[in-house]
Amino acid sequence: MREYEVNEKGHLVFGGCDTVRLAEKYATPVYVMDEGLIRKRLEEIRTVFLQPYPNARAVYASKAFQTKEMCRLVTEGGLGLDVVSGGEIYAALAAGVDPSCMVFHGNNKTPEEIRMAAEAGVGRFIVDNAYELELLEKQAGRGKAPIRVLLRITPGVDSHTHKFISTGNIDSKFGISLEKEERDRIIKRVMDMEGVELMGFHFHVGSQLHENDSHLAALDILLGLVDEVKESLGFEARELNLGGGFGIYYAKGDQTARLKDFVDPMMEKINRFYHERSLPLPLVFIEPGRWICGEAGITLYTVGSVKNIPGIKTYVAVDGGMPDNPRPILYQAKYEAVLANKAAAPKKQIVSVAGKCCESGDILIEDLPVGPVESGDILAVFSTGAYHHSMASNYNRLLRPPVVMVDEGKDHLSVRRETYEDLIAREL
Amino acid sequence: MREYEVNEKGHLVFGGCDTVRLAEKYATPVYVMDEGLIRKRLEEIRTVFLQPYPNARAVYASKAFQTKEMCRLVTEGGLGLDVVSGGEIYAALAAGVDPSCMVFHGNNKTPEEIRMAAEAGVGRFIVDNAYELELLEKQAGRGKAPIRVLLRITPGVDSHTHKFISTGNIDSKFGISLEKEERDRIIKRVMDMEGVELMGFHFHVGSQLHENDSHLAALDILLGLVDEVKESLGFEARELNLGGGFGIYYAKGDQTARLKDFVDPMMEKINRFYHERSLPLPLVFIEPGRWICGEAGITLYTVGSVKNIPGIKTYVAVDGGMPDNPRPILYQAKYEAVLANKAAAPKKQIVSVAGKCCESGDILIEDLPVGPVESGDILAVFSTGAYHHSMASNYNRLLRPPVVMVDEGKDHLSVRRETYEDLIAREL
Repeated sequence: MREYEVNEKGHLVFGGCDTVRLAEKYATPVYVMDEGLIRKRLEEIRTVFLQPYPNARAVYASKAFQTKEMCRLVTEGGLGLDVVSGGEIYAALAAGVDPSCMVFHGNNKTPEEIRMAAEAGVGRFIVDNAYELELLEKQAGRGKAPIRVLLRITPGVDSHTHKFISTGNIDSKFGISLEKEERDRIIKRVMDMEGVELMGFHFHVGSQLHENDSHLAALDILLGLVDEVKESLGFEARELNLGGGFGIYYAKGDQTARLKDFVDPMMEKINRFYHERSLPLPLVFIEPGRWICGEAGITLYTVGSVKNIPGIKTYVAVDGGMPDNPRPILYQAKYEAVLANKAAAPKKQIVSVAGKCCESGDILIEDLPVGPVESGDILAVFSTGAYHHSMASNYNRLLRPPVVMVDEGKDHLSVRRETYEDLIAREL
Repeated sequence: MREYEVNEKGHLVFGGCDTVRLAEKYATPVYVMDEGLIRKRLEEIRTVFLQPYPNARAVYASKAFQTKEMCRLVTEGGLGLDVVSGGEIYAALAAGVDPSCMVFHGNNKTPEEIRMAAEAGVGRFIVDNAYELELLEKQAGRGKAPIRVLLRITPGVDSHTHKFISTGNIDSKFGISLEKEERDRIIKRVMDMEGVELMGFHFHVGSQLHENDSHLAALDILLGLVDEVKESLGFEARELNLGGGFGIYYAKGDQTARLKDFVDPMMEKINRFYHERSLPLPLVFIEPGRWICGEAGITLYTVGSVKNIPGIKTYVAVDGGMPDNPRPILYQAKYEAVLANKAAAPKKQIVSVAGKCCESGDILIEDLPVGPVESGDILAVFSTGAYHHSMASNYNRLLRPPVVMVDEGKDHLSVRRETYEDLIAREL
């Protein structure tokens, strides 16, 4: 179990704020994001990556958690933005993000999204497949600058992670196979396209990784490719994008990835490789998402029913569930939590935390040690900053929670709670 | 593979409409619901259940698919409404549904939801636990009529289905244990409450069932309970609610449940039981949801990238995915689909249908036989009428699709597509 701050009332403190007071002020369920912790992670990216390596660039994977406010935070932190849809581009533009700092991902960008991105002047397209090139060709020349492209390759590296979030296998919906003929055909095609400039290559090996071996293995394959295509096609890769996937702490057995442990060996390999070939150093991108904001979020719930099934277990039901946190039912994801109003109490009881959805799989946490739990208690679930707000649904017509930002004892509402009126606003 | 209608152009016809024309008119992805098929299922409920059994009642489980229009369809069909949240109650009231025909479910109704339902005069509360009774007591007397209550029991029956949608086991977040002391304490408590009237008992054994054995086993347990509590507490159950769970056809191996096969043996047991005891027949409720609307829906997508990985598989990517259909990644649910614009073509190719989310688990269908597939084709996925619109999210900031109703060749927009503006409307 992680460490957490408790005040003199025995209440959990997060971002300097008494979480029980936050629950009273904003009602529950509510997502609370600690700006300070987000800034700390952005600072670490600068300190261990951007500053030591002048050829380093970082973009934030906004699918993890995107609000206009978050876009501004990461931009102020010196990062660009990884976007995966027209919706993410729209929101980023609305937040004032410079489109040239955006990197556009996706295995199936639509013609409309590609046109939107090209017209806006999005900085990099991570091209996933040959069909995307056809669509891009129609847009080439529409923007002021050439369309800058990196090709996503499938390095065929097993990322030792849950299969649903492993994206580097050869059987993957993502990226371009390294099979020579297919690969060279696509690279040559981009090199020949007018108004489109091939910058280099991208890979992403998986998510929530604690070890750097998959990244290093994929990088070796990538550098091999750089050599081969220079030889066979005369193409010199000026940009390499190493993706994200840096793990965070959810529960026992996890650890927060040390970014340095990932980037130092990769930068050393890359810079030595280019140095040995007397080539100018390439720009190297990383794309952290979860790592920046995951641990910066908690969700506060109110406990309702407490149901003891003798000899089996005790269910503690909260006023949210799979609509605000689908990760347990999607990935069997593990979480830790504490009673925010009894944060200092000894945890003598083991319970299961159930959501309020009419679905038996809507269980948020199994086997959680808690203090003496009663209806009306506030439960704080940790590490809900990434892939919660962004994955939330209205299943059971529950209202999506607000997002409250906290920072050194101050709090403000960033995203308001959904209303009943919102639920039927699209009905004619 | 199911049968489907193809017109002279070789296009899939659904609800009398050319689906290729629907895709052109409304763009993709789009949910299309066949009102005629919904009406046919409502008619079957009347024919095999409501008309033969004067003591039969049916309510539609709106969590499967709730729009104001759907509320009106089922109300016109002679059914009440099963609701599971304040949001569902709000929408049903907005549709003009008589609150006395609503049945309110949930393992953790909030104090606000209980107050809302009591003030509106919701017809039945399916009480899940002792804490809910405390909350109900505070509301008793606020409405014009007494609050009518059924207790949800946990019959401890294994429903032979996917564990996530099995809700009848003794280890369940739902319902009241049949352990005598606990059970009698709760029943006695309701009997003694002023302004609250205990009507009977409810069970729900699971979802997507094709065999009636779980229902029958649970009913035996329920009837045993009826005898016991009459003996021990003098309570005569006047209402029995047998839940839903009637399966539909998604893919090979499934069959559409014959409602008659479920309700006839149950009604025979119940009516004989009450007759033998010279008791007036109870009202008997069923709660179909998926069974009414699941097969009445299809989703139309446009094919984007078609990626052949030699020796492995061909990925066909569509312009939607897990945000509009989370069931494959949640439950490993199987679907069938056809190229709507080549519906008559021989299916000589086997492909995997990938969604457009930046998530490797976003695969909608594995091993789908299709005709000669190309980018720009329209793919129609069948049986998407239940738990799709209602479970949809904005993950990756994709826009939630519109709902188009079709009926005998006519089509109209029921729920408009989400817009980019909608995505950031709650941000301050």
